[in-house]
Parts: sequence; structure tokens; C-alpha cells
Amino acid sequence: MLYIIGLGLGDERDITLRGLEAVKKCDKVFMEAYTSLLSFGLSSNGLSTLEELYGRQIILADREMVEERADYILLEARESNVAFLIVGDPFGATTHTDLVMRAKKLGVVVKVIHNASVMNAVGVCGLQLYRYGETVSIPFFTETWRPDSFYEKIQRNRELGLHTLCLLDIRVKEPSLESLCRGRKQYEPPRYMTINIAIEQLLEVEQKYGESAYNEDTTCVGFSRLGSEDQIIVSGSMKELLTVDFGAPLHCLVIVGKTHPVEDEMLDFYTLKREEQELREKECLTCLK
Amino acid sequence: MLYIIGLGLGDERDITLRGLEAVKKCDKVFMEAYTSLLSFGLSSNGLSTLEELYGRQIILADREMVEERADYILLEARESNVAFLIVGDPFGATTHTDLVMRAKKLGVVVKVIHNASVMNAVGVCGLQLYRYGETVSIPFFTETWRPDSFYEKIQRNRELGLHTLCLLDIRVKEPSLESLCRGRKQYEPPRYMTINIAIEQLLEVEQKYGESAYNEDTTCVGFSRLGSEDQIIVSGSMKELLTVDFGAPLHCLVIVGKTHPVEDEMLDFYTLKREEQELREKECLTCLK
Repeated sequence: MLYIIGLGLGDERDITLRGLEAVKKCDKVFMEAYTSLLSFGLSSNGLSTLEELYGRQIILADREMVEERADYILLEARESNVAFLIVGDPFGATTHTDLVMRAKKLGVVVKVIHNASVMNAVGVCGLQLYRYGETVSIPFFTETWRPDSFYEKIQRNRELGLHTLCLLDIRVKEPSLESLCRGRKQYEPPRYMTINIAIEQLLEVEQKYGESAYNEDTTCVGFSRLGSEDQIIVSGSMKELLTVDFGAPLHCLVIVGKTHPVEDEMLDFYTLKREEQELREKECLTCLK
Repeated sequence: MLYIIGLGLGDERDITLRGLEAVKKCDKVFMEAYTSLLSFGLSSNGLSTLEELYGRQIILADREMVEERADYILLEARESNVAFLIVGDPFGATTHTDLVMRAKKLGVVVKVIHNASVMNAVGVCGLQLYRYGETVSIPFFTETWRPDSFYEKIQRNRELGLHTLCLLDIRVKEPSLESLCRGRKQYEPPRYMTINIAIEQLLEVEQKYGESAYNEDTTCVGFSRLGSEDQIIVSGSMKELLTVDFGAPLHCLVIVGKTHPVEDEMLDFYTLKREEQELREKECLTCLK
């Protein structure tokens, strides 16, 4: 049996009881390491926290391993219980369909245990999930590669009054160009796109096409570390959000479409104005003490 | 502190460890009872299962209670820790924004604990979540009320090649028309729309407009009890799905847009053909025994 288990967005405590039960039944536990492990703090002692809580040794599986050694994982799953842990929900990202398909072809029973993903957790800002159009991905621009197919999609969503969720690029374990030329793989340090970079790229593309899909006054909502204890959610114009330091990754961005009054009222709790006001109030309270 | 805690889709074991910790810290635990409690089997002994696992007495809060007694819930939350449990993710449905907003206005700190919702769990069928357009709701038609604003939205999604998630109507604790006339509220038995009813209504509206947004040969995916141990997922044309008995609620439906080959390959695992084939194979195995 192959259990594909979503870990949710925050930390090791965001696994479900059902998920934890499944992990504890498994002989081998793999964990995908090619989208984001940040919130699980694996670079320091996170892995051992996970292993302690889950009571199992965890084998980190990066993209190469999953692609090259999928057969090994699946052969194990044919003989015994194997868990494959995924940050967020198993199908929030596109990368896991392949493993499931190969499993099914080999006759391995697959059981999926769901969890929260960015795709539904953005609902917390008050914009209704059924008022979102197509989701877009914003890739890191390089000097020679500046793909902008997201522009047309955002434009279409906005014409329809729909909100747009922008997923921001994550580059983990990318072989460096230099190392590829030398024929010996070495990896770039991981990179996570910030909301600031995303907005700069968005405005650059708007300037290129000039079709007013959006502009620096368009209302957006920026999220960092969504679902964690220290998440930040700020609503404001693109221009305003450019001035905000959202801190550590992961970031994502919603470009707001036409809003319902209830949505406006909720967004109002996340405006910069409100944040500053609360800060001032806190400062006043401190003064009074 | 007001904890708004998503319970996920399956049963009581789909709460996260973080959610369970929060429930156990709370003095009062409310549970929304106006969307769906089916999978939690509350009509029989489910509530006590929940109460046993969570170690807390649970106060069922229907729509009326939340609307009329929100102040009571919020006053409690100002003085102590209060949990409000919601099936799925807190913001998968639209109905909880109001409580959050009132809490924030009263200065009650709100903490949201996310979980899976239908909006992301449908990803399990292999259709990529970022290829969905606007989500639609299909309401129960009555003799005199047949709202069909979903038609235009589906049409638009399909023109863009996008998939459409159709959320099917749930009628819980609806006062009967008769009782309203008599001025004494009595409630209709709960009703949950089946995939079959949804498809019949969809085809009726297509016939009315005749704009070929879809037809009985359009590929769809039907889901029942998504996220539960006994979930059913079947892919087929509208016509084919009309012949399928999806069993107990909740049901939902995806109208498939333009597919990527990988999506096709995954959907193929859920076709009726495949189901029948597996059934025949099982029967053969039984014969051989």
C-alpha cells in the first residue's frame, strides 16, 4: 500500500490524526523535498522533530530520487506499507500525479490523505474561493528568459471580475549552469520568490503590453508563511505592498478582482492602514503602562 | 481567543494535531451544523465519537444559532478559549466570514486552523487544480424557481478550456413553506443533491439555452464522500454518469475542460470501463477460488 499523505502548511503538527496513524503503520517513510520544506525547518533540526513526532525515520526524496528511484519506492509499496509525505495537499502541486500513476499501473493500492493547501488556505483573507479564476505561476525572470503567459490569464480573470492566485517560483536543487557545462552536477542555493520580486515582474510585463490588465494601484493581498503561527497577510495596492517586508518564505500573492462588500470588509482588516493603526494603539498602550 | 478549526472531509480522525491541541485548550466547543455533518455520522452516535476523541462536550450550532447567538459565542471567546469546528476548511464555505468579522470587530483574537476542503481535494482525480475556472453552485430547482446563472460560468470556463467544479445544493434545517404560513417553524428533512439530479438540471438548462456549453457527451468526474474511506470517483460522459449510483451524500461534480495527456491518463483510472473491468477481474478471481 502506498499512502500519499498531505502534511498541511504549518509545521509537523499539521498532519491529521488519520495521516499520523498511516505513517505509524508504514515500514518506509519518504518525504518529498522538492517543493518546500521550509516551514518544517528541516535545514536545522526539523527533520528530527518530524521523526520524533511521527516515530519513524524519514527518507528525504528530492525530484531526482523520485524520478530515478520511483520503481524502488513502488516495489517497496507492493510488499509493505510505504508513506510518501507531501507538504500541503498531495495534489496541490502537479508533481505527484506521476508517482500515483506509476503505482496504479503496477497494481499498488494508493491511499490519499488530504490536508490544507495554499489553494484553499488563501480563503482566510476573506476573498471567496468560488470567485477565483485560473491560478497562475510567476517564474523567476532571467536575463534571457522572461516568460509572461500569466499576463493574459490575469487579464482574463480581471475582465471577469475574478481574483487571481499567483503561485511564486521556488527553485530548489537546481543544477548550476556552470556545473552542467563542466558535466559535474553542482546545485544552486535554493531560491524562493518574494512578493516584492513578483510585483516588480508583474509591473514590468504590464509595461511591456500596456493593456491595463492591472497597474500599481491594483489591490492585492500578500501572504507569507500561510498557515504558520507567524503568517503575515497584508492587503494593499501593488505599490503599497512593494514597501512591505514579508520576511521569510514562502510567499504568495492574490490579485483582487471585483469584490463583494463582505469581502471588502474582511480585506479591510488586513490593510496597511489597519496594521499601522494597531501598531500605534499597541505603542500607546505601552506608553500608558 | 476564538479558534476556527477545520475538521477536514472524512471523519473525526481528519482533524490535525494542531487542531486537536486547540480543541483541548478550549472551555467551550461549538460545531457548525448547517453545511454537512454527514460524514461525521452525527445523526446516530457520531457526536459522542467526536466528543470522546476530542475530550470535550460539543455544542451543535445551526445557522440560526450562529446568527442569533453569535454575540454569546463571541463574549465567551473574549473571556476564555472557544473553538468553532467546521467541516472541511474554515473558508471553503462562505458562511463563516461573518463570525470572523464580528469577532475581529469585538477585538477577539481569531486563530484559524486549516484543513482539506472539497476545493482542493478534488485534485485527487488528476485534473490539475490550476486549470480550474470559476466554481459554480447548482441549486435545487423547484417548480417556480430554476436559477441557472451557473450556465454562463460553465460556458466561459469551457471556452477557455478550464475545468469547472460544481458544488451541489445542501438543504439542512429549512423551514417548510407550510409551517412558515402557519407562523410556527417546522423543518423539512435534510436534502442533499445527487450527481444524477445535478446532471439532469444541467442538461435541462443546456436545452433551454442551446448554446452548446456542454452536452450529454461532455466528460465529467463525479465524486461522492470525497476524502472518506468509501469515496467513489467515476469519470465518464454526463450520460454515463447518469447511470451510476454514487450512494450516500455528499456528492460533487467536475465538468472537464481541455485536458493535458497526463490528466487523461489519470482520469482513465476512474472511467466506468475501468471500474467494470476491475469488477469482472474480481469476479473471475472469485470464480477461480
